[in-house]
Amino acid sequence: MPESIPTPFILIDAEVVRRNVARLADYARSHRLGLRPHTKTHKSKMLARMQLDAGAAGLTVAKPGEASVMAEVCDDLLMAYPAVDPVQCKELAKLARNNTVRVGVDSEFAVDALADAARSMGSTIGILVDVDAGNHRTGVQNSAEALSLARHIAKQKGVRLDGLMFFPGHLSAAKPDAQNAELLRIDEMLRKVIELWRHDGLEAKIVSGGSTPTATQSHRIAVMTEVRPGTYVFNDMNCVHGCCATLDDCAARIVTTVVSTAVPGQVVLDAGSKTLTSDRCGPAPDSGHGFIVEYPQAKVTKLSEEHAQVDVTACDPGPKVGDRVTVVPNHICPCINLQDQVWWQEPGESPRPIPVDARGRVY
Amino acid sequence: MPESIPTPFILIDAEVVRRNVARLADYARSHRLGLRPHTKTHKSKMLARMQLDAGAAGLTVAKPGEASVMAEVCDDLLMAYPAVDPVQCKELAKLARNNTVRVGVDSEFAVDALADAARSMGSTIGILVDVDAGNHRTGVQNSAEALSLARHIAKQKGVRLDGLMFFPGHLSAAKPDAQNAELLRIDEMLRKVIELWRHDGLEAKIVSGGSTPTATQSHRIAVMTEVRPGTYVFNDMNCVHGCCATLDDCAARIVTTVVSTAVPGQVVLDAGSKTLTSDRCGPAPDSGHGFIVEYPQAKVTKLSEEHAQVDVTACDPGPKVGDRVTVVPNHICPCINLQDQVWWQEPGESPRPIPVDARGRVY
Repeated sequence: MPESIPTPFILIDAEVVRRNVARLADYARSHRLGLRPHTKTHKSKMLARMQLDAGAAGLTVAKPGEASVMAEVCDDLLMAYPAVDPVQCKELAKLARNNTVRVGVDSEFAVDALADAARSMGSTIGILVDVDAGNHRTGVQNSAEALSLARHIAKQKGVRLDGLMFFPGHLSAAKPDAQNAELLRIDEMLRKVIELWRHDGLEAKIVSGGSTPTATQSHRIAVMTEVRPGTYVFNDMNCVHGCCATLDDCAARIVTTVVSTAVPGQVVLDAGSKTLTSDRCGPAPDSGHGFIVEYPQAKVTKLSEEHAQVDVTACDPGPKVGDRVTVVPNHICPCINLQDQVWWQEPGESPRPIPVDARGRVY
Repeated sequence: MPESIPTPFILIDAEVVRRNVARLADYARSHRLGLRPHTKTHKSKMLARMQLDAGAAGLTVAKPGEASVMAEVCDDLLMAYPAVDPVQCKELAKLARNNTVRVGVDSEFAVDALADAARSMGSTIGILVDVDAGNHRTGVQNSAEALSLARHIAKQKGVRLDGLMFFPGHLSAAKPDAQNAELLRIDEMLRKVIELWRHDGLEAKIVSGGSTPTATQSHRIAVMTEVRPGTYVFNDMNCVHGCCATLDDCAARIVTTVVSTAVPGQVVLDAGSKTLTSDRCGPAPDSGHGFIVEYPQAKVTKLSEEHAQVDVTACDPGPKVGDRVTVVPNHICPCINLQDQVWWQEPGESPRPIPVDARGRVY
């Protein structure tokens, strides 16, 4: 471990990243699915390039600010998030002059805002109608609403109806039977929308879906044309407890130092909520704030901004003050978002910093 | 509300900040307590200056990186956090050449690391012995340990024994009777340590304690010489539910836009965990992820990275897509830490951006 880099910092295992990237690219290729990785996880142009080199057809972003950064490495971008703010719509419309830009939306308001911006900018923005596949976050609620919104898009200048988008965030690989039944239900639901559109002369050229937990089950939704996982590039404890990755697949670790052992049965690490975030582990909410690789019996019980309190009563012995330990976080995406740079570890080399290019792009 | 600034962003009410800063400065002055605001909350040189102008005797920081930034506006700094990493110790030792630098520690390891760094840098670092006052995060456990560590400090070159530090993070203003009894217990415990030191020829010139919830009760710990609250400059829902501030005292709000109303009974705001953080409200963990000022009946039930799902079934009517609403977050400190700049609103003027100077100083 590189002792010269002060803690806390994020260390990325290059070989594990390459394996994760290749594995999903192979899956997508073998099922003739487009792969459009969500760059919110790494916010890095270097990693986006790696994903594109491995065969990704385009990139997914969450914000116009991320789109602007990723447009430097890719000319085919999907913002899988409804844009309604006029400044955001204008930025997307500007990008759409020289790039393929698509946005997933679920309201006429968003369509009109994007169409207005695109017309004033002399560009065209592709629209995917966001359909609620059961996650109940965003998305039109049924095929009638999907048709109504598609018709609204089709008659507007500045926007182009390109297809459908969904996010199956309610599914877990930990429950494969329930997951598979639900994937079939989603396929049927999407099929119904597509048929309704076709009857109306409207085409869903793109059907974009997926998340990391469901990524390798995407072929079960036969109508899908592309998948947009994000976390798979690094993986995290959400993936491990969610049964879609092993600990060996976790490429990113927080390197921390034990700063106190004063309270009996406890050690304190210099990685609090400003490093690990307070995100709980979705599939295992009582598992603590991340997994300490060197002390699997330890439990990160409590975070404050700069302290992680770790119960080490089950460790014999626990770490000492000054020791370094590495933590696989519950949710890697917001952890990366807290860093200006992360450290890239090639085998046999010293880690080198790589920038988190799209960090701070808050809109 | 300034429509030209894209959401999400943090808007700071300048008048409320000035009132918060003045109020605590008045309290400290009237009780002859030193005030050493914790700058982890705002990470802003401009706000640190305002606190110093109002009478603060020095500043508190959590990291050497924050200390370096705050040294630009103040030459008297306390790092209320144990430094053990060699790079961190070296940075503090360097700062100690031209500034009064103190560090709160609870181990001989940390004392030795700081002393080594200070000797090699030709400086002296003041040490406060961190005593666990009942919060059980860091701090020596009893007066015997406090004496042992003080003796260790006193015989080392490069460090100077300056006193005691504690953090009463376990106390809540919502339970005043229990709080007052505990404050008396802490006073007695500290008094015992001070007497033991005095008997040994050692002096506790500084006794530093306090947090925002207990700040205005600090006079109940008669041996205290200074108080170091952080959150009071802005306040947040932790303060409101913890009964140490009112909603009118909350100076910082997240301005957000409704981006989806597709799911019945719900609206989605463009402020997820990458804006509001996943920090729960300590005193009211089931109150949701912040308070929507314009819709007090609404509840922010769930966050993903860029989405806040809000239950609006109790609102009649709820907000529409494109509407802006403002959220008082549960915990303002990590929210500020996610922004490169926040927006400062003077009455009758357009908001102007002020930098979060020490953001990104991860060590």
